[in-house]
Amino acid sequence: MSDEIILLDFWSSPFAMRVRIALAEKGIEYEAREEDLSNKSSLLLKMNPVHKQIPVLIHKGRPVCESLIIVQYIDEVWSHKSPLLPSHPYHRANARFWADFVDKKIYPTGKLVWGATGEVQEAAKKELIESMKVLEGELGDKPYFGCESFGFTDVALIPFYTWFYSLETCGDFSIIANCPNLVAWAKRCMQRESVSKSLPDQYKVYCFLMELKKKFEAK
Amino acid sequence: MSDEIILLDFWSSPFAMRVRIALAEKGIEYEAREEDLSNKSSLLLKMNPVHKQIPVLIHKGRPVCESLIIVQYIDEVWSHKSPLLPSHPYHRANARFWADFVDKKIYPTGKLVWGATGEVQEAAKKELIESMKVLEGELGDKPYFGCESFGFTDVALIPFYTWFYSLETCGDFSIIANCPNLVAWAKRCMQRESVSKSLPDQYKVYCFLMELKKKFEAK
Repeated sequence: MSDEIILLDFWSSPFAMRVRIALAEKGIEYEAREEDLSNKSSLLLKMNPVHKQIPVLIHKGRPVCESLIIVQYIDEVWSHKSPLLPSHPYHRANARFWADFVDKKIYPTGKLVWGATGEVQEAAKKELIESMKVLEGELGDKPYFGCESFGFTDVALIPFYTWFYSLETCGDFSIIANCPNLVAWAKRCMQRESVSKSLPDQYKVYCFLMELKKKFEAK
Repeated sequence: MSDEIILLDFWSSPFAMRVRIALAEKGIEYEAREEDLSNKSSLLLKMNPVHKQIPVLIHKGRPVCESLIIVQYIDEVWSHKSPLLPSHPYHRANARFWADFVDKKIYPTGKLVWGATGEVQEAAKKELIESMKVLEGELGDKPYFGCESFGFTDVALIPFYTWFYSLETCGDFSIIANCPNLVAWAKRCMQRESVSKSLPDQYKVYCFLMELKKKFEAK
């Protein structure tokens, strides 16, 4: 078995960004292979036959799928540096809870704010702002969600910062007016090289998402 | 802080069953408090203000929410007995992947098979059978999903055995004809006291689900 590490990647995927951040936090060298999602590689279909989705981390020839599961895997295998999950079971449960909240509440509603129109978009926007305020409350005055150090919930959430311009433009609202602490936290995270190097430009993501929206609408 | 363990519970919830099984596997004494889901207790609203859902495990006065997160918490706190997650990171990732698959593919489609009608039900049934066959393939000839011992994926999936009668009756199909290994696995799990004592009777669950369906349809 080869010891090499391959990431089946896609530049604008918030889920792939999580994995890129975790690998960077641990200082792990890897080969990123950009997938063409309209013509998925045979390697992707072989390595993730169930969901056929990126990101997939291939380590020693074996695939690990689903972004939060990959981040935990990385944290467990390379445990010597930059722990992402806290050591205490209660704090670990808490970190997992908020990462799961991002998947359940931020991703699906955010997608509708930039991807839908009319009443569906309006309802999603209301729900998204409520969920962001829940995160704002949980963050409070702490520098990071875990507390003093950048951790699992931060890794789970920060990729959605690349959606902020799209959300504000499509949803016609101000995130900073609703959630000033959350925006300050995002900027704090962006000062870390692991994050800034893993996240594409918000305007570039906006252009990509609008192309995607046009394609959906044309169908 | 009190050392007592309280489970905010509901008898027919597959998610609550997961927690009951994990606690039984570890031999932990606890107080189960049955919630009235149409009139949730102030304790539930206080302990899970974000989702307001059972199950919630209250340990030393602190809440842990979301069933798979609770099961991991139980496994980490009471690690001396009946480990549920394997020790190797790759096998842990695999167990998490399949537990997540149950949440993403079995629960939502299963709910539509007993809860919906017409085309929606028919599409869900097709998808559910496909997902069950994926699980059948993953299980293969192993006694349990992890391999030799009952573990995390088994805990995540076995509560849905209580839906089997409802799924077959509402969906008009045979699970054993499609997935014989899965049914044999379920019966094997049911021989464990931790499981059999945590799962209600399938026909009792069917009656409850049909009442629920009537209420939805009346709305």
